[in-house]
Amino acid sequence: MGKAKMTATELERMAIEEVPFAGNMGIKFVEVGEGYVVATLPYQDDFIRPGGTIAGPVMMAMADLVLWGVVMSQLGPVKLAVTTNLNINFLRRPTPGELTAVGQNLKLGQRLAIGEVSLLTGGKDGDLVAHVTGTYSVPPRS
Amino acid sequence: MGKAKMTATELERMAIEEVPFAGNMGIKFVEVGEGYVVATLPYQDDFIRPGGTIAGPVMMAMADLVLWGVVMSQLGPVKLAVTTNLNINFLRRPTPGELTAVGQNLKLGQRLAIGEVSLLTGGKDGDLVAHVTGTYSVPPRS
Amino acid sequence: MGKAKMTATELERMAIEEVPFAGNMGIKFVEVGEGYVVATLPYQDDFIRPGGTIAGPVMMAMADLVLWGVVMSQLGPVKLAVTTNLNINFLRRPTPGELTAVGQNLKLGQRLAIGEVSLLTGGKDGDLVAHVTGTYSVPPRS
Amino acid sequence: MGKAKMTATELERMAIEEVPFAGNMGIKFVEVGEGYVVATLPYQDDFIRPGGTIAGPVMMAMADLVLWGVVMSQLGPVKLAVTTNLNINFLRRPTPGELTAVGQNLKLGQRLAIGEVSLLTGGKDGDLVAHVTGTYSVPPRS
Repeated sequence: MGKAKMTATELERMAIEEVPFAGNMGIKFVEVGEGYVVATLPYQDDFIRPGGTIAGPVMMAMADLVLWGVVMSQLGPVKLAVTTNLNINFLRRPTPGELTAVGQNLKLGQRLAIGEVSLLTGGKDGDLVAHVTGTYSVPPRS
Repeated sequence: MGKAKMTATELERMAIEEVPFAGNMGIKFVEVGEGYVVATLPYQDDFIRPGGTIAGPVMMAMADLVLWGVVMSQLGPVKLAVTTNLNINFLRRPTPGELTAVGQNLKLGQRLAIGEVSLLTGGKDGDLVAHVTGTYSVPPRS
Repeated sequence: MGKAKMTATELERMAIEEVPFAGNMGIKFVEVGEGYVVATLPYQDDFIRPGGTIAGPVMMAMADLVLWGVVMSQLGPVKLAVTTNLNINFLRRPTPGELTAVGQNLKLGQRLAIGEVSLLTGGKDGDLVAHVTGTYSVPPRS
Repeated sequence: MGKAKMTATELERMAIEEVPFAGNMGIKFVEVGEGYVVATLPYQDDFIRPGGTIAGPVMMAMADLVLWGVVMSQLGPVKLAVTTNLNINFLRRPTPGELTAVGQNLKLGQRLAIGEVSLLTGGKDGDLVAHVTGTYSVPPRS
C-alpha cells in the first residue's frame, strides 16, 4: 500500500464541502492509506431506530462517504467523482454506539473505481454489521 | 391493486416514530395503494452537492423509506420489518428540486418482501434519476 | 420507442459469436425495439434443480444476455460492451417450462448503460420469478 | 474457523445432484473450512468470449456454487437453501485460464446466510477479476 494522496484532515474538510449531507454527520477519518480508509462515526440520538439500532440510511451514508474517501486517497482531490452503484447487505442490528467503517479499493480503472466497505460495531476488529460494495465513476486521467 | 392497510397520514406518523433519520427528512407520502407508494421530498439546501445535484445518501434514505412504506401498505403497522439488502443505481444527476419516488412490491413472501423504487425529478412522469431494489425481512405471519 | 439498431435475427447470430456460453443456451429474441428486448428460453432438462425449479445461473445468464441485447438494440453491433455490475433478486421458484425475459433500458450514457430485466414464467404477463438490474460499460461514441 | 460439516468430495457430489447446471461445469472444491471454501474451475473453450476473456455467466455460476458451498460447509447437506440475491462486480477481464474462487461467510442467521466470493486468475493470491456478495435463504433450524 502506497502513500495516500490526501490526509485524514484534508478528507474531512473536503467531505464537508463536497458531500455535506454525509460530511456533516460527524464522521472522522482515522486511518488513510492509498486505497484504504478507516473512519468512525460517534453515536448520535437521532441515528437510532426503535429497538435501539442504528438506522440503515446512516450506515449507507457512512459507507458512501468512505468509498468516496477510498477513491480520493488514490486520485487526490478530484471533484467529479460520483457514485454509480451501491449495494449494501445489512447483517446484524448494530448496538447504539460508535460505528467503524473499513474501506478498501477493489479496482481503480480509467473510468470506474470499485470498492468495498465493512461496517462494524466495537471497533475495527468488532462485529460486522453491514457490508457494502460500490462503484464510483471517475474523470479520465492522463 | 387492493386497498392499502395504512393511509399516507399513518405512514408519515409511523415513519417519524419508527425510522426517524429518514422520517424527519420531510418526505410526504402522496399516494398509497396496496404494495404501491408514491412519495415526494421537497428540496432543502443541505441535500445539495456542489454542482447543484442532490446527494446520493438523501436518495438512498428516501428509497429505503419508500420501500418500508410499500411493505407497511401490505402488512399494516408491523414493527419488526428491517432492510436486509438495498441496491441502487444512480442514473442521472438530479436537478435541485423536489424528488419523487414511486415504489412497488415485487414479491411479498412469508419471510422476505422485495420491492423496487424509481426516483425521479419533475414528478411521476419526469426524469428517472435513480433506480433501487431492496429486500425487507418481515416477521412470520399466521 | 424508436427503431432498434439490430433485428432479433442479428442479435441471435451475434450472441452466438460474441457471448457463446449464454448465446448457445437456446435463447430466442422475440421482440426487439430501441432499448427494449423480449426473449424466451425453451426448457431443457439440464436447467433444472431438484424440486423442479430452474437453476439460478440459467436465469443470470439469460438476464445478462438480454441486458446485452438492450444495449445492442440502441448502439448497434458494438463489440466492446462488457458487464460491470449485475444484481439479481430471485423472487419465486420458476416452474419447469419456458422462461420469458423482458429487458428495458434505464439509462444510456456516454460510458455506462444501465438496464432492467424481468424474468417470468407463463409469458410476458405471467409470474415474475426474478428481477435484475445491470450495468454495461460501453465504448465512447462520437 | 471450525470443522466443516461437509468435505470437498461430498460438496462436489452434492453439487452435481442438487445444482447440476453449475455442478457440471467442472468446478473442484479444493479447500473447505466452516464458512470458508476455495474452488477452482479449469478452463474450457466454450467459457470464452471473443477477446479471450471468460464469460460473465461462467463467473456468476461459479460464484453462486461457491456461496452454496459456504452455506453447506456450515449447515451440512441442507436441501432447501436457495439464493435470494446475488450482486457481482466485474473488475478485470480474466485471462483464459483456471479461475479460482474464495468464498467466505459474512453472516449465518436463522433465516438468511450472506457470503462473499472473490474470483481470481493466477490462484488464490492472483488478480481479483470479480467480487460477489450473495444471500441464501436457509430452512429454519432447531
